[in-house]
Amino acid sequence: MFERHRETFTRAQEACRTRACWSPYPEMPGKYPDTGAAQARGLAAFTAQLGQPFALEQPGVTGTAGEEVSPYTQKALGIGYPQSDPEALFSAARAAMPGWAAADIDTRLGVLMECLDVLYRAHLFDLVHAVMHTAGQSFNMAYAGSGVNALDRGIEALVHAEAAMRFVAPEARWERRFGASEIRLEKTYRLIPRGVAVCFACASFPTWNAWPSMLASLATGNAVIVKPHPMSVLPMAITVRAWRGVLAAAGFDPNLVTLCVDTVAQPLGKVLIGHPACAIVDFTGSSRFGQWVEANAHPALAFTETSGVNTVVLQGADDLDAALRSLATTMCMFSAQMCTSPQTVYLPPEVATPQGPVARDEVAQRLAAAVARLIEEPRKAAMILATIQSPETLGLMAAMRNAGAARGTVLLESHPYAHPDFPDARTATPLMLAVGKDARDLYAQEQFGPVSFIVACDTAEDALAQATQDAKENGGITGFVYATDEAFIARAEEAYAQAGAQLTVNLTGAMPLNFAAAYSDYHVTGLNGAGNATLTSLAFVASRFAIAQSRRPVAEGKEDRHV
Amino acid sequence: MFERHRETFTRAQEACRTRACWSPYPEMPGKYPDTGAAQARGLAAFTAQLGQPFALEQPGVTGTAGEEVSPYTQKALGIGYPQSDPEALFSAARAAMPGWAAADIDTRLGVLMECLDVLYRAHLFDLVHAVMHTAGQSFNMAYAGSGVNALDRGIEALVHAEAAMRFVAPEARWERRFGASEIRLEKTYRLIPRGVAVCFACASFPTWNAWPSMLASLATGNAVIVKPHPMSVLPMAITVRAWRGVLAAAGFDPNLVTLCVDTVAQPLGKVLIGHPACAIVDFTGSSRFGQWVEANAHPALAFTETSGVNTVVLQGADDLDAALRSLATTMCMFSAQMCTSPQTVYLPPEVATPQGPVARDEVAQRLAAAVARLIEEPRKAAMILATIQSPETLGLMAAMRNAGAARGTVLLESHPYAHPDFPDARTATPLMLAVGKDARDLYAQEQFGPVSFIVACDTAEDALAQATQDAKENGGITGFVYATDEAFIARAEEAYAQAGAQLTVNLTGAMPLNFAAAYSDYHVTGLNGAGNATLTSLAFVASRFAIAQSRRPVAEGKEDRHV
Repeated sequence: MFERHRETFTRAQEACRTRACWSPYPEMPGKYPDTGAAQARGLAAFTAQLGQPFALEQPGVTGTAGEEVSPYTQKALGIGYPQSDPEALFSAARAAMPGWAAADIDTRLGVLMECLDVLYRAHLFDLVHAVMHTAGQSFNMAYAGSGVNALDRGIEALVHAEAAMRFVAPEARWERRFGASEIRLEKTYRLIPRGVAVCFACASFPTWNAWPSMLASLATGNAVIVKPHPMSVLPMAITVRAWRGVLAAAGFDPNLVTLCVDTVAQPLGKVLIGHPACAIVDFTGSSRFGQWVEANAHPALAFTETSGVNTVVLQGADDLDAALRSLATTMCMFSAQMCTSPQTVYLPPEVATPQGPVARDEVAQRLAAAVARLIEEPRKAAMILATIQSPETLGLMAAMRNAGAARGTVLLESHPYAHPDFPDARTATPLMLAVGKDARDLYAQEQFGPVSFIVACDTAEDALAQATQDAKENGGITGFVYATDEAFIARAEEAYAQAGAQLTVNLTGAMPLNFAAAYSDYHVTGLNGAGNATLTSLAFVASRFAIAQSRRPVAEGKEDRHV
Repeated sequence: MFERHRETFTRAQEACRTRACWSPYPEMPGKYPDTGAAQARGLAAFTAQLGQPFALEQPGVTGTAGEEVSPYTQKALGIGYPQSDPEALFSAARAAMPGWAAADIDTRLGVLMECLDVLYRAHLFDLVHAVMHTAGQSFNMAYAGSGVNALDRGIEALVHAEAAMRFVAPEARWERRFGASEIRLEKTYRLIPRGVAVCFACASFPTWNAWPSMLASLATGNAVIVKPHPMSVLPMAITVRAWRGVLAAAGFDPNLVTLCVDTVAQPLGKVLIGHPACAIVDFTGSSRFGQWVEANAHPALAFTETSGVNTVVLQGADDLDAALRSLATTMCMFSAQMCTSPQTVYLPPEVATPQGPVARDEVAQRLAAAVARLIEEPRKAAMILATIQSPETLGLMAAMRNAGAARGTVLLESHPYAHPDFPDARTATPLMLAVGKDARDLYAQEQFGPVSFIVACDTAEDALAQATQDAKENGGITGFVYATDEAFIARAEEAYAQAGAQLTVNLTGAMPLNFAAAYSDYHVTGLNGAGNATLTSLAFVASRFAIAQSRRPVAEGKEDRHV
């Protein structure tokens, strides 16, 4: 099966090495093969699933659960997922592992490339609608960010897992004299999977982190229990069912991949992590629970990606309008419900431009105006803002609006907008607040949703210092700097590197500022509270397996060949 | 400086790839260049140090400590080491890091290869005597195991660190169309060291684990605070002083490597691990404290190598006497105070040989006789057994002797032997006990020192099952099997791999069964309680640094070159 995917895998290896742009998938839904029919099939599959039990054979089924509500319709999806006893899932996962671990690296990689390929060929548009109606993303983002880009991150994880495994020689001949005797040993080195992995998928972006995490564990021989957020089960349920099918068809035990569904009222996360057979935890979600995972997963390994305050610093811009347009677009994208969305903009009293300095208040007003302009037309707003995943976000925004008005200025009020296709959609345009540095309790931590802050700083240096300090102390995945002063850019690169946020400098144009490309952009450094794992580094894969060796004297007949 | 060491480093890379036998160092002290003069200088340096303050410039010195007692003379060494305030050490280490982290990979590797070379050229025999009179090893073991072999493990760590760092491209060009606009980005990827590492060195084998740990941290840009066991400070003090000299001579801040000396009454280990600036912990020592480190080091990374029960299974042997001689030698080596020493021998009722089955009691008696014969001549006993590092070991042995006599049979009594060169040496010949499976509370955990158990098992399969279960549950670094049945060997390889102990099969001859060769033998799997880190795998190095990236549009002038 690996032969079928070898060319793609080889190209992916090259992309990981050069970190140049590459993907085996078309970027736009319109370029998907026979896209009209495929899109229709995906929509039909999704629609047929509503109100129905989700057909998934699993071990230890004890009941049914499902409490998803579409952010587009604010109606329950009505899908009932089988709930399995965690003990049965661990037991089945352990039983499934020996055959999988005994397969050679190429075999496992071939099966897992096929798993990705099946999602792409047979389920991409089911997944698009599943992501839309659980996470609340737009059609286009669900296709790209949660579809093909996430598949790319999956292949990238396989490339890294392969490299880490191949670094270990499978066998060796070792010969040395000890005193009078010549010792000749043949040694074999086995890669032993760590054990059962538990992969948590988050509510607003379920596939992009989960697929690479699952594949990193599976490629290195482990089994995976997937624990989706109870409000975003469907994308992972589709994934688990599809992959179980591929595994079984390839002659492996499908219980290498299972689904653990829980409810908001009765969460199972700590039960899974506390299980003695839990050997690896991948977690994407809230910073609060992520910190708990990091501190309590032991003896399991923990890989986390949580959240933080993503910061923007403007020292100057060659084209201020272009910079503000890019910022406005990225701040609006999916209503800032991405872990990479910029949230807090640190402004000096003046921003340098070729036409002379522009005062902070004017910069703030022009940024707010750019945001307002971008979303005034509902069809465009729908494409960019999409919906609000959780009702709690609306409560947070109301609280922020009041606090911001009391302690600063409301630059842009939030209001629902009328989605042209889904009149009942849960929507909110961006709330923008102008505050001083004394409002650090508000702006220096993640406020999840379309809320942003413009912070008045003393100087550009002060803005950089505040931004990077906040990222370092409270976690930050991304940073964005616009500057005309090269020395300032050099200092910003160093400061953001130390703060552990991935930096984008002076980017304008059609690319979203926070777009993270598989094979090229590293996601999360592990240097601040926004997570301890990087998509994808060797550290993300290398500890998921261990090396066990056996050595013995070379058998008589074999000695001569090497003498 | 790297150029001076490039050839050696390249050969080491090849050895890590092929895992064949190689070392840049002569194996025997007699083959050291101008060995007579070098040995005399080493002894003179050690002798001159006795009763004197140890001259080591360090930050934040608050006093002096030193409570080492030579196991050879049972007299205090009288060396006073400067004690530094941990706060000052962390502060100095942090201040030292930026310049070191900014150096390129070759520069750091060159300096660190020079650090190893300086130990080899200028301090090897000082270190030999320092190890003898703290850890209690024999001259030959101190030269090989704690000298050149430990230097080899250091180079091996550098090779792995280099490979993990080189896997990250330093920069990339990335170009993609977004809608109508072509985005061209240049990206840079910086390797950011994790922070200040704390390296614990153990009492009985201080250099072999500490050097590779220190080098793994330093190569990836971190600073290291070394915390030696208070009874074995001198080897690490010599190391720290020498490396500080190399660093300073190369223009780097010597506070990249500092020494933290504590006392048995006032240990500082938890203070160091609990310090907010502690980012990495390498620990070698007791299983009890190692488990605490693994569970409590967070947010610091923890790499541990502790201890466990090393097991032996005899199903059969082509030459039973040769097998028993090898076992006896390895069980005696350094009075079984190595983390790889075999301790518990699981015997079926009969052991298969070409001459027919040999009854368990006879096998046990012949093994005990082989041990007794090996050590009956004091000069030979001195070379093999050396001394007992800690007085506590004698107490443990007395307790084991009583428990063994009450619940089984004493196969071989322990007694002090008269060391020919050091009449006051703390010595003990091996205690061997024959017990049943009901004595699992005694034999299935590490009893540190020259104590071994022969356990009566139901069958060879039962012996294998018991041995691997004990290794899995209570930790085990090594396993040893003698068998004539190839199917049994195959099952043993699988069972030991799952138990996470590195296996040696049917080895006889002059090589100690537990000899672990740098570049070839992996030490500790991480799959059981004997530690979570492997010397040396990619997982041992890859998380010691993070990857921070910066990306920006390609500058106008540069665009053309790539179009």
